[in-house]
Amino acid sequence: MARLRVHAFTLTLDGFAAGTDQRADAPFGDGVDGLHEWMSASFRGEGTGADHAAFLAGSENIGATIIGRNMFGPIRGAWPDESWRGWWGETPPYGHDVFVLTHHPRPSLPMDGGTTFHFLEATPAEVLAQASEAAGGADVRLGGGAATVRAFLAEGLVDEMHLVIAPILAGAGERLFEGLDALPAGYRVEALVPGESGNVHARIVRR
Amino acid sequence: MARLRVHAFTLTLDGFAAGTDQRADAPFGDGVDGLHEWMSASFRGEGTGADHAAFLAGSENIGATIIGRNMFGPIRGAWPDESWRGWWGETPPYGHDVFVLTHHPRPSLPMDGGTTFHFLEATPAEVLAQASEAAGGADVRLGGGAATVRAFLAEGLVDEMHLVIAPILAGAGERLFEGLDALPAGYRVEALVPGESGNVHARIVRR
Repeated sequence: MARLRVHAFTLTLDGFAAGTDQRADAPFGDGVDGLHEWMSASFRGEGTGADHAAFLAGSENIGATIIGRNMFGPIRGAWPDESWRGWWGETPPYGHDVFVLTHHPRPSLPMDGGTTFHFLEATPAEVLAQASEAAGGADVRLGGGAATVRAFLAEGLVDEMHLVIAPILAGAGERLFEGLDALPAGYRVEALVPGESGNVHARIVRR
Repeated sequence: MARLRVHAFTLTLDGFAAGTDQRADAPFGDGVDGLHEWMSASFRGEGTGADHAAFLAGSENIGATIIGRNMFGPIRGAWPDESWRGWWGETPPYGHDVFVLTHHPRPSLPMDGGTTFHFLEATPAEVLAQASEAAGGADVRLGGGAATVRAFLAEGLVDEMHLVIAPILAGAGERLFEGLDALPAGYRVEALVPGESGNVHARIVRR
C-alpha cells in the first residue's frame, strides 16, 4: 500500500481548518482571512525558507490524491447536473487521478493536464486501496477537508501529516482535532518549526 | 482597572489545556505528559531564551492573581472541611492576594510568604474589580484553568494572553478555545515565536 500523506493542512491558532458558511465564493468560509497567507509567496513564485519547502514537499513523489466532496465543490447533497467541474477550472493542478469521496457517485471526469476526478462512495481503506493502485508506486496525498482527514486519521491510515498553524483566530468553524481520542496512541508530533509568515509548521508522524 | 494578563497558559497541538480525569495526583489529568516541559529549565534555574523570558514575564508587575476553583485543588462541590490548602504547600509561590472563583465560598486563608487565598462567588467583572484593588496599581494575572480563562475572554476582560503550544497530542480533555465565537472581534494574534523545547509561544492582544 502507498504511503498516505497530508500536506499544507492549515489551522487557525484556535484550531479551525475552515470558518463558518463555506460556499462557492468563500470555499473556506468566513473568519479565516489569511489562513493560507504562508503559501502566497510560493504562489507568486517568490517562496523561500521553511514555508516554500513545506509548499514544495506537498507535491513530491505523489501519484494520486484523495479529497472529500466539499473540497471538490460547494454543492451538498445530490448533484443537480454534472456542470460543476471542481474549484480549479479546466486544468486542475493535480496532474493525476483524484479520488473524491461522496455519497453521490457520478461518472469519472477527465480534465486537461492529466487530472481525472473519480467519485466514490467507499470506506477510507477502500479508497486508499484504489488510490494506491493509481499512484503506481508513488505516495498518495490526502487533501482534505477536515472531515475527510479526520476519517483517515481515526482509522490510522495516515502515515504523516504536515500541519500549519496560522497566526489568526477564527472563533468558530470546522475543527480538525475533534473526536480523535485515540490519536496520541498512534501518532506523535515530530517538530514545530517557524515559517516566514508568523506561522508554524508541525509534522505529525507515526509512533 | 488593572490590566488583566494570562501567562504561560499551555495547550497541546490539538488544543487541550488539560487531559482527562484531572485529580489530586494528576492536576492536569491524563494524556498531557510534557505539557509544561518548556518551563522545566526555568524551574531548575537553567532557563534561557524565549522559554525563560516567557516564564519570567508571568511574574513581572503582578499584584494579584485570579484562579478558578479547580486550579486551587481537586475537590469538587462543597468543601468537606477546610483542610485542603492548595496544591502548593504552606508557602505558595504567589506572594500576594489570590482570588479563587468558587460556588462554595469559605473564609480567607493566609499562607506563608505573603499569599492569601480569598474565595468568591462573583462574576468575572466583580472579581477583577476586587483583584484590581488588591493589586495596588500593578497588573492582575489570570491563572486558569481553561474554564476560568474562557469566562474572562468571553466578557472581553483579558488585556493580553501569552499561550504556549506544546509539541504533544492529548486526543481528549479540556479545551481553551471553545464557545468563543466573538474572540476574533476583540483580539488578534501578535506573534508566534519558537521556544527551546520544540514548543511555540503565542501572544494574543486586543485589536
